[in-house]
Amino acid sequence: MRAAVLFGPNDLRVVDKPVPEPGPGEVLVKVAMCGTCGTDLKLQTHPFPNQPPFGQFTPGHEWSGTVAKLGDTVDELAIGDRVAIEAHHGCGRCENCVLGMYTACLNYGNLAKGHRASGMTADGGFAEYAVHHVSSLYRLPNSLTWEDAVLVTTAGTSLYGLDAIGGYVAGQSVVVIGPGPVGLMTVQACKALGASPVVLVGTRRGRLALGARLGADCVIDATTSDAVSSVRGVTGGFGADLVIEASGAMPAPQQAVEMVKRGGKILFLGFYPGPVTLDLSSAIRDDVTLYTTRGEGANAVKRALSLAAQGKIRGRELVTHHFPLEAIQEGFRVVRERDGDPIKVVFVP
Amino acid sequence: MRAAVLFGPNDLRVVDKPVPEPGPGEVLVKVAMCGTCGTDLKLQTHPFPNQPPFGQFTPGHEWSGTVAKLGDTVDELAIGDRVAIEAHHGCGRCENCVLGMYTACLNYGNLAKGHRASGMTADGGFAEYAVHHVSSLYRLPNSLTWEDAVLVTTAGTSLYGLDAIGGYVAGQSVVVIGPGPVGLMTVQACKALGASPVVLVGTRRGRLALGARLGADCVIDATTSDAVSSVRGVTGGFGADLVIEASGAMPAPQQAVEMVKRGGKILFLGFYPGPVTLDLSSAIRDDVTLYTTRGEGANAVKRALSLAAQGKIRGRELVTHHFPLEAIQEGFRVVRERDGDPIKVVFVP
Amino acid sequence: MRAAVLFGPNDLRVVDKPVPEPGPGEVLVKVAMCGTCGTDLKLQTHPFPNQPPFGQFTPGHEWSGTVAKLGDTVDELAIGDRVAIEAHHGCGRCENCVLGMYTACLNYGNLAKGHRASGMTADGGFAEYAVHHVSSLYRLPNSLTWEDAVLVTTAGTSLYGLDAIGGYVAGQSVVVIGPGPVGLMTVQACKALGASPVVLVGTRRGRLALGARLGADCVIDATTSDAVSSVRGVTGGFGADLVIEASGAMPAPQQAVEMVKRGGKILFLGFYPGPVTLDLSSAIRDDVTLYTTRGEGANAVKRALSLAAQGKIRGRELVTHHFPLEAIQEGFRVVRERDGDPIKVVFVP
Amino acid sequence: MRAAVLFGPNDLRVVDKPVPEPGPGEVLVKVAMCGTCGTDLKLQTHPFPNQPPFGQFTPGHEWSGTVAKLGDTVDELAIGDRVAIEAHHGCGRCENCVLGMYTACLNYGNLAKGHRASGMTADGGFAEYAVHHVSSLYRLPNSLTWEDAVLVTTAGTSLYGLDAIGGYVAGQSVVVIGPGPVGLMTVQACKALGASPVVLVGTRRGRLALGARLGADCVIDATTSDAVSSVRGVTGGFGADLVIEASGAMPAPQQAVEMVKRGGKILFLGFYPGPVTLDLSSAIRDDVTLYTTRGEGANAVKRALSLAAQGKIRGRELVTHHFPLEAIQEGFRVVRERDGDPIKVVFVP
Repeated sequence: MRAAVLFGPNDLRVVDKPVPEPGPGEVLVKVAMCGTCGTDLKLQTHPFPNQPPFGQFTPGHEWSGTVAKLGDTVDELAIGDRVAIEAHHGCGRCENCVLGMYTACLNYGNLAKGHRASGMTADGGFAEYAVHHVSSLYRLPNSLTWEDAVLVTTAGTSLYGLDAIGGYVAGQSVVVIGPGPVGLMTVQACKALGASPVVLVGTRRGRLALGARLGADCVIDATTSDAVSSVRGVTGGFGADLVIEASGAMPAPQQAVEMVKRGGKILFLGFYPGPVTLDLSSAIRDDVTLYTTRGEGANAVKRALSLAAQGKIRGRELVTHHFPLEAIQEGFRVVRERDGDPIKVVFVP
Repeated sequence: MRAAVLFGPNDLRVVDKPVPEPGPGEVLVKVAMCGTCGTDLKLQTHPFPNQPPFGQFTPGHEWSGTVAKLGDTVDELAIGDRVAIEAHHGCGRCENCVLGMYTACLNYGNLAKGHRASGMTADGGFAEYAVHHVSSLYRLPNSLTWEDAVLVTTAGTSLYGLDAIGGYVAGQSVVVIGPGPVGLMTVQACKALGASPVVLVGTRRGRLALGARLGADCVIDATTSDAVSSVRGVTGGFGADLVIEASGAMPAPQQAVEMVKRGGKILFLGFYPGPVTLDLSSAIRDDVTLYTTRGEGANAVKRALSLAAQGKIRGRELVTHHFPLEAIQEGFRVVRERDGDPIKVVFVP
Repeated sequence: MRAAVLFGPNDLRVVDKPVPEPGPGEVLVKVAMCGTCGTDLKLQTHPFPNQPPFGQFTPGHEWSGTVAKLGDTVDELAIGDRVAIEAHHGCGRCENCVLGMYTACLNYGNLAKGHRASGMTADGGFAEYAVHHVSSLYRLPNSLTWEDAVLVTTAGTSLYGLDAIGGYVAGQSVVVIGPGPVGLMTVQACKALGASPVVLVGTRRGRLALGARLGADCVIDATTSDAVSSVRGVTGGFGADLVIEASGAMPAPQQAVEMVKRGGKILFLGFYPGPVTLDLSSAIRDDVTLYTTRGEGANAVKRALSLAAQGKIRGRELVTHHFPLEAIQEGFRVVRERDGDPIKVVFVP
Repeated sequence: MRAAVLFGPNDLRVVDKPVPEPGPGEVLVKVAMCGTCGTDLKLQTHPFPNQPPFGQFTPGHEWSGTVAKLGDTVDELAIGDRVAIEAHHGCGRCENCVLGMYTACLNYGNLAKGHRASGMTADGGFAEYAVHHVSSLYRLPNSLTWEDAVLVTTAGTSLYGLDAIGGYVAGQSVVVIGPGPVGLMTVQACKALGASPVVLVGTRRGRLALGARLGADCVIDATTSDAVSSVRGVTGGFGADLVIEASGAMPAPQQAVEMVKRGGKILFLGFYPGPVTLDLSSAIRDDVTLYTTRGEGANAVKRALSLAAQGKIRGRELVTHHFPLEAIQEGFRVVRERDGDPIKVVFVP
């Protein structure tokens, strides 16, 4: 098969590679589409812990496709089923996995013990075929496109975060900072769960306009107004019940602390380029809890698929660029240089 | 003012009564509309614990209206504000209230210590004016009618129940048993929170049709099909993640146990005419939790109002009968005899 | 090896059988001791769903022993380690297991997919050797005896139940109904977590005396006093914050409803011989939640072992009878006939 | 009566003042003892928001005493009852109080609406008499001394924090950073709830020795060993299930992030002199939640009293200095200059 392989820093090339074999409990999927995310840029330059070595590793963790072959004992899916994925499969035997916290698997990266983070610690979806564990595959409703499926993985991040904070945001005020793919799917997820108002804070006008089209009740351009006082303004002066930080911008955590209501919650979904400085005492004085989640645990992708099938979250509109897999270098150039304001760039094998 | 007073069993008459005075933290409301519920029938024949004596008591706990006078220290509302209510205000000082469980107030019915269940332990809304604590009043968005406001109290019961089970039903299967007002508002609430499928089980064809119009994905007529096997059928054989029992029918708890998924949840929102028999061992073997809630605690009415203002739950369609307050006996005859299949009967002072 | 095999109803005989081989992720343990529990009686007469057929099946799910051989990929334990067990290992791939609810595994009894309930759906510990998954084995601290280890599995049931209700019982009033092994371990667990008072309700004087020795603050003999009013008496009239039903007696669920505080919790740990009748409306009116758990999920055995190692729960005193494995029929006669008031009967291979 | 009044920055003087009158729901207490805490130093130099003006304000929020007079409607206590307190009483009517989050009361400092933070927004316990709301007073068991009662308020801070993280620490590893009064009471509380091991990290040898006497399983002197690697060492390399930061030291939050297990929890109980810098990305990558609490909400003082009465937490040993109220300036000099390594300094009116 054809597959992208990382041969060195930023040296991702499409080469021939054997089609992988699904083991017990695993499934071989013919990849239909694979999205890119910020993590894909980072791991090309600074390999992650437990990342396979240069010369072997095929990244890509937001993929979808059609079931091609079933490993031993798999009867949950059938050949020909269209599927979306979540990236992580836990080992199922460490203390955290046993408790359901498999994105914090203590055997992270240990393939022998069963852990697999597709496109991160094991080969992923920038390829014609990929193998994954059956518990990380979700049957795609007919009404959804491959683009939707790719963004369903992204929405899984939103919904796992919402799971962490309790998930009951109906009638509550929510601020989402950062209108990237995660932020835009989060805005939709919060609306789909009945939050109101949902406020989107960003710095790029086009992104904010898209956020408004996707359902944000209010958008705040942080380049032209003070985001904190604007949020206070739309929340009766109290601040928001929940602030979701999805920008990864260095000043954002402090803004989140200033935007949140007494007794409120902050959820961190982004990663920062370095240590972050914030007025923790203020959060403590106000009984504010700071939640974090990583990836798409706790069946969040199942929830995301359901919301997508109900027409309550839309992925298609975020896909701005399609490339054939063979053009992977040009595709990542576009991502890296933000050429044409790409939101979600996808590859089609 | 004119107000209905319960003079004896089923002897509810409209008489003259002084307009009540709001105390500190309280508000006088000119009642615009007051709904009836099953509880109103029961307390006319079998007075509840802590119910005021015959000859004095004005029932009615689903009312809405316009702020007429503010008690001392109240600045959260202004005269002329339209409001919806929740029935309960806790004492604020017992162990349960301090923890936020005010519908289980340990000073239930103790007016001196501050507890007040409007229309149950204190005078309610079958009157031109009613007094309530400011914390139990919610400003009504302009887009909502008085009928919506009455049903928002009902929806508060649904949403408090959903709060008890965690509130995160997005993408989960839910069965609602009983298409009365609580059941029909619950169906809408579950849809508004992203549940799917939402299955409504009932015995009256008209009610099921209304449930379908209000958003139920699937309705099951228990008179023509086996409800348990039908639910198993639409949930892949596993049973539902959540079963909400809102019928108060004696066989329903056992059906709920048979309909729920392993590890799932049952929520009881209705009351039964006598002791209930169910296969508790089966629930235990399946790690099923049985939740109950009473009334509309935990700011559920605020959430309900928000969903109503978002257009996600609709109350108006449930109001089948309007009566002037003076016709209260005729109105309750309709309720009692189910004359014309009343869903929600309201009185207008 | 020598192992007990169930050849038919109540026909448990010790025969020769091959030593089992541990598969990947599994461990072979040389059994040192195996306890009996009520379930062992029931499954000998009425086989459980997914129980292996007569002529093959070796029951026993409360065992401990020494690691004899490691399956592929196992490095969490070493040969010679002493271990205690939990009975259940989930499939790790169904929706419930992924969420950490493995005692409600949707592939219950499906060995091919990885589920294993030792001594229930797979061979257990009434044998010289038993195989189990590494995630269900816990290294035994040196200070603990085999008897302690057997009862640690029982205490796992208590602690999993306490997990379900939140686990934060410090300073709260708890009633435990039923001074069997589960009840007696539960009393100790509640005391170890700081509950006060912990009240034990039972009908056998000797058991109540043992409960008092093991830490119950108050014991109530239900044959000589009214248990409900006694509980109300020691809880200031309010009822208990938590009632734990561990007796399996038919009237106990109703008593639990009458003993619990408004807003309180009831936890069911026992099984009943038939459908149970209780005043559910009363629980609903009082905002009472009814929790159930089955077995020892959520790492409860790890917690139990820690409490045992801290000297806060004691198992040894509950072991009233030791039998060699070869005397399994005599041992079960003692259990069945309650000959000599056995609390925990153990077999030593 | 005699009472300390803050006349200006660090100008606390004992003067004559009228004995206050308890209003409805309030109680007048003859103060027996009042402790000092870091907050008392800060508010003398930098008045807190909503602090009464110079010339009027009597601080002191860790007091205990004897009921002297009951306000209207109070029957929960009787004259002569010995009581301990929690500092906060919420307004009971804002959104947060209604939900039980009264330490985050949205009417903080608004006495007219019923909020009262004794010794912070209202007169406190550096006086012969103090008034407080009945819901913030807890009857003191006979076995406890006034010193115990003062520290019970401190332990309330520990137990409210443990409430926030779920409270179920039995068998889990806990690190407490900072052996001040809060840290030392937290160590005891964690042991009382069955945590193991409980590790205390500090920089003063005497404090660590006291921590060990009070139950810490392991103490780490951060001046002589690397605290992070020591914690990793005693937790099998995984880090601690829970890290509680009670030192307020600037590097401590980052240490907490490095000490905690994947999927673990950090609880912040201290306040920092300025903005804090930490590797938030690392917490996010590891699914770590950061909890904060302020004060002693959620009936934590009731739990603390119970643990003290059970002999599981001890306050007396932390009281290093007693002063008569008239010597308040000398007492605070000792606190300010850390003269004689004071742990808890108390005043006796």
